[in-house]
Amino acid sequence: MKRYIISALVSNKSGVLTRVAALFSRRGYNIESLCVCSTEDESLSRMTIVLNGDEYILGQMMKQMDKLYDVKKIVQVEDDSVCRELLIVKVHADRKSRSQILEICQIFRANVVDASPESLILELTGKSIKLDGFINMLIPHGIVELARTGVTAISRGKEHIKEK
Amino acid sequence: MKRYIISALVSNKSGVLTRVAALFSRRGYNIESLCVCSTEDESLSRMTIVLNGDEYILGQMMKQMDKLYDVKKIVQVEDDSVCRELLIVKVHADRKSRSQILEICQIFRANVVDASPESLILELTGKSIKLDGFINMLIPHGIVELARTGVTAISRGKEHIKEK
Repeated sequence: MKRYIISALVSNKSGVLTRVAALFSRRGYNIESLCVCSTEDESLSRMTIVLNGDEYILGQMMKQMDKLYDVKKIVQVEDDSVCRELLIVKVHADRKSRSQILEICQIFRANVVDASPESLILELTGKSIKLDGFINMLIPHGIVELARTGVTAISRGKEHIKEK
Repeated sequence: MKRYIISALVSNKSGVLTRVAALFSRRGYNIESLCVCSTEDESLSRMTIVLNGDEYILGQMMKQMDKLYDVKKIVQVEDDSVCRELLIVKVHADRKSRSQILEICQIFRANVVDASPESLILELTGKSIKLDGFINMLIPHGIVELARTGVTAISRGKEHIKEK
């Protein structure tokens, strides 16, 4: 099992997400994370899908997606691309534990977004593995709530993902 | 038309996304952005949906989603919650324009992730409206590629979204 990232430009209209999601669920493949959002071109959305599987599953899903009329372009995101994810986490913090949590924030360069007498809300951007490490450090303090965006990606240098 | 944010905890298994997406597409409602990702509990995913519409559409979709067995909890994200989005953007930058772009980065507190002789990759976190403003400032320089994660959200203070 490996982790693959697929980036696709799709028509920004109702029904496209359902059709793409159905391709995965019909085969029982679960998506680790998905984000879909508008782009610089209003008629297009970008979909970034993180998939756990093997080369076969990846190839199959990319081919199936490419066959959909509303999928305008699809690429596998290479390992050297800029892949980022955003995490917001609310963690228990009293007067004793607050300084320990702030130390962890310093190590990971996380930002404090909000504070209350019982909790802190922290924000961190980076690769998924960095976010996982940060969460692991916070677990002993007690995580109240956690929200991640899922990965989004862009290729380095000259290359870019444009319409086919 | 207003912008509403729905946050839901759903079962982390194949098919759930398809069922949720189908609820929207069946009525022809388009989702502005969606992100779904794992949570601190492996059996659950968090889905954050940004919807353009009115109170009626919002109420209808929340009720319909709540009826799904795999939707464990659903709330409307209030305006005072922490709502964040991540943007990665590749912009044309030559020796002349680079310093102008770096000035824009300073204003918005954006980070430079990668640089090549022809382009810069920038990263910015914040509310959607801040990201829109940043993109508007970059358009004259020429955007090569743009990827956003879509909004993710967490409530402030004591409240939190837990399983029903």
